[in-house]
Amino acid sequence: MSEYLNFKTKFESRVSIHDKRKTSGHFANTPGLPESLKKADNVVYMAAGRPFETLFPFKEINVEYRDNPGKLGVKEASFSSKNNDSNKAFTIPMYKENEEESDIATSFQYQVSKGAPNLLLKTRKIIESLNKPGYEGWDTVLTSGSSDSMNKTFALLVDEETTVFCEEFTYPNVFHNCYYYGGKATPLKMNVTDNKEEQGIDIDYLQDLLENFEQLFPERKQKKCVLYTICTGHNPTALTESFAKRKLIYDLCLKHNVFIIEDDPYGYLQLPKFDKNKPFNNPYENGSITLEIFKKDLLVPSYLTLDTEGIVLRLETFSKVVCPGMRLGFIVSNLFFIDRLANINHLTNRYPSGGSMSFLNNFLNTVSENYKTETKEIVNTDIQWSDGWVDWCMKIACEYTHRRNALFKAIYETDANKKKLFSLLEPSCGMFASIVINLKPKYYISNKAKVNSKQDKINKIKRAMDYLFCCMLEAGTVVILGYKMTLSKDFSMERATFMRITFAKASSEEQFVKGAKGLSDGIETFFDEYMTEKERWNLPLTGLEGM
Amino acid sequence: MSEYLNFKTKFESRVSIHDKRKTSGHFANTPGLPESLKKADNVVYMAAGRPFETLFPFKEINVEYRDNPGKLGVKEASFSSKNNDSNKAFTIPMYKENEEESDIATSFQYQVSKGAPNLLLKTRKIIESLNKPGYEGWDTVLTSGSSDSMNKTFALLVDEETTVFCEEFTYPNVFHNCYYYGGKATPLKMNVTDNKEEQGIDIDYLQDLLENFEQLFPERKQKKCVLYTICTGHNPTALTESFAKRKLIYDLCLKHNVFIIEDDPYGYLQLPKFDKNKPFNNPYENGSITLEIFKKDLLVPSYLTLDTEGIVLRLETFSKVVCPGMRLGFIVSNLFFIDRLANINHLTNRYPSGGSMSFLNNFLNTVSENYKTETKEIVNTDIQWSDGWVDWCMKIACEYTHRRNALFKAIYETDANKKKLFSLLEPSCGMFASIVINLKPKYYISNKAKVNSKQDKINKIKRAMDYLFCCMLEAGTVVILGYKMTLSKDFSMERATFMRITFAKASSEEQFVKGAKGLSDGIETFFDEYMTEKERWNLPLTGLEGM
Repeated sequence: MSEYLNFKTKFESRVSIHDKRKTSGHFANTPGLPESLKKADNVVYMAAGRPFETLFPFKEINVEYRDNPGKLGVKEASFSSKNNDSNKAFTIPMYKENEEESDIATSFQYQVSKGAPNLLLKTRKIIESLNKPGYEGWDTVLTSGSSDSMNKTFALLVDEETTVFCEEFTYPNVFHNCYYYGGKATPLKMNVTDNKEEQGIDIDYLQDLLENFEQLFPERKQKKCVLYTICTGHNPTALTESFAKRKLIYDLCLKHNVFIIEDDPYGYLQLPKFDKNKPFNNPYENGSITLEIFKKDLLVPSYLTLDTEGIVLRLETFSKVVCPGMRLGFIVSNLFFIDRLANINHLTNRYPSGGSMSFLNNFLNTVSENYKTETKEIVNTDIQWSDGWVDWCMKIACEYTHRRNALFKAIYETDANKKKLFSLLEPSCGMFASIVINLKPKYYISNKAKVNSKQDKINKIKRAMDYLFCCMLEAGTVVILGYKMTLSKDFSMERATFMRITFAKASSEEQFVKGAKGLSDGIETFFDEYMTEKERWNLPLTGLEGM
Repeated sequence: MSEYLNFKTKFESRVSIHDKRKTSGHFANTPGLPESLKKADNVVYMAAGRPFETLFPFKEINVEYRDNPGKLGVKEASFSSKNNDSNKAFTIPMYKENEEESDIATSFQYQVSKGAPNLLLKTRKIIESLNKPGYEGWDTVLTSGSSDSMNKTFALLVDEETTVFCEEFTYPNVFHNCYYYGGKATPLKMNVTDNKEEQGIDIDYLQDLLENFEQLFPERKQKKCVLYTICTGHNPTALTESFAKRKLIYDLCLKHNVFIIEDDPYGYLQLPKFDKNKPFNNPYENGSITLEIFKKDLLVPSYLTLDTEGIVLRLETFSKVVCPGMRLGFIVSNLFFIDRLANINHLTNRYPSGGSMSFLNNFLNTVSENYKTETKEIVNTDIQWSDGWVDWCMKIACEYTHRRNALFKAIYETDANKKKLFSLLEPSCGMFASIVINLKPKYYISNKAKVNSKQDKINKIKRAMDYLFCCMLEAGTVVILGYKMTLSKDFSMERATFMRITFAKASSEEQFVKGAKGLSDGIETFFDEYMTEKERWNLPLTGLEGM
């Protein structure tokens, strides 16, 4: 409790104007009862409007699950429990036998704002095992996925006095949320490069912004700042910031009273280096990535591990390693922030779907039990609860590695690659990669003047990328243009000569080959036609309207 | 589309300041492509980061369900699919066979912001069949339950210029949400009475507020108003407004440009009149309430049915008729508002849990199919899709009627009732009832002066109700005091001499008897001790602190 009060004292003034307005507790709370009052045993609760559980239509749920994620291109037969005794299943029973388990009576009932206690405990174990914060007095709260977490952390910290720094290329809901709560979004220059030490936020740029904030933004009366960052498998560039760089950024933020919202949806999808000579080499498959190696060498530690002051809010989600439709994620932060975030849960969607929580909780129990059973036969070591979960994440990462291999092999074999019309930035993590187009200078430097205006250059790059998009669409491949995920075209267009591609959603290797061919054909057509008399679409000087 | 534009033109200026800030579309949209561009057939989508469905751990889900809700006090044996072939089940398969069905591949994937199309269509059918709006150009959007709907409708309509009118007694999240978005909450005087024509909002009071708004609230620069109302089985009083009254309120709101947020979580739980002579009489059980009678005579039509101008937003939820833990509800309103609300979904929790949506959708398919099969054998009439759903609601209402009967019988048999220490206000709908305590005037009128100050009276009523709460807790029953669900004690305490009780959450008839006894004993002790030398708790003059 004293740690809660510590953080409350330290950070209460920093919560948003709207969040400050919600102060009172739940109407069913009854603080201040006389000490001498002797409550009866077995009290009858006629208070809360909770339907009795036998009024729910569901009696028992059986979930047949995969031990291993499905392989690329392996078509699964329509599944039927009746014909296959070897299928594995877990159950959500009507009434549970222990607190570890989720049941229908509890999960489909009203629940507390922080989310189901048994699942909440598991999220704490995951953090304890993989990214333990550098202070006591932290906690977790469940949310309906990382979009929900983002919205709620912004609701907590952002108002009209707040500046939100974010990577210049980012998921657009970041700035939409910032504007929604009245904040000022300010882009941070990124190094979109293959260099592992350099990639990500440009530190000098950030330092300059923070040290000269008052001069740079005289109209912003307060230096009340938040950094929103996807530092691992960044969306859209797929880059990952080194731990050394995270240390520098944390120190800068601490010095300048900046809270860090670390969004990490992709972090468990660790991708070993692609081997051009053995494109289908997959270290997960040949056993050279052990659980220990995965945890200690592959995962880049979270900002949480550096955090001694409780300034970090880490957002995790189960969308990419289990499935997005469940809508489940969680936030890790200091006790005071977690309490306020649970309060925001109560005010909005109450708590995540109990059905989803029961599925995830009992699935996590299952993978943990399975892992214990399997590994005990091999080695007799201390197995942490979370190891079963990490093992599942590794299986998913293995499959993403295979998908990455299939796509990269196909891309490197294309004609456009052989002609060096683009560079592929290889990610170490996630489900995306960036393709940087080697735009010719004539596409963005005016012929008439050596130095053309900045706006002119921006327009020209945008027009070129839009033309390229059209060529690829015609050739049969849809990508996301980098500039579509930027806060400010003015600020970022010179670095937005890339596109985001994904290896998440394809049903077969042939799809990747076809996608890569469309990409290559589109790029070739672009270089062939653009700025020549062969241009077939008369795009406006500022590129496509509405894009 | 023209209807959408009509509503946009009419209501665009009325959305909140923060909602106005979100204007752009999704980054993956590509408007403005050249007309001559010929998109390839079978395009490969390398755009959205959607995990391929065989990466999800779930392969097939079997849900064993109840044909009929469980009966009060009937203990269900632990359920096992292995031992009982007569159990009924529905399935969420990996891949669906038709669009009506929900499957894992779609439901556990990312979905559109409005929610799963097949379930969305069902919500429209429910509205079309039971509460068809009086205009064209309406639609529905799925949400994560009515708390989520409330938050989102307030986010849409409430900012610092907005006045929110609400029943003086209401669910406290109503005013918390109002304050969160900067609005001014203003209580409406209620008639807490048994009189069916009078009960609910005091019309004269509302009319006076609206007609003299500028004089009454000179500090509110704008007359920009929203009415939030639970007009059917109101929480906490359990009262229902007559259709005649709804007409008057709608006309007043239309005249004064007031939007109506009609929250209706309890409406399907229709309770036939309690018969003191035959307390366990249940018209649902003896077949005297047919589906047609339920739809036409019992359900009080929504404000939607009166709405010709698109000013109503109706919130429905599946929490009370299916189960709360699913977190599923929907909003009905004009096309423009629905589009903005889907946009808020996208910015916050994206869409409701796909797992929950698949459960509900396939359950609704099942009850509809079962109903068709059963009724075809009896009569050969046109059956609407929604009739199976209404039939399920009637089964739930039947069980609530039985629970109401058990509790009311027990309450009427208590000593405190025989001594006329309270009146029970019988609800026609919902899961709550109000018990109005017949407080003696000496408890709230000062002995010393004939006319005491208003604050003195408020303090005295609060202190009396708090003492009563303690007595009941000691006697073994927990209730919600009416004043704990009021926007302003100053405004409402004179009408807050009641408590809210529920018959939703009890496992047996004995629980109701025990609860009623605790209630009666507590009330008797209160009348026995309060304001005498027998007072055992020395409560402060303003009642319990923190309450």
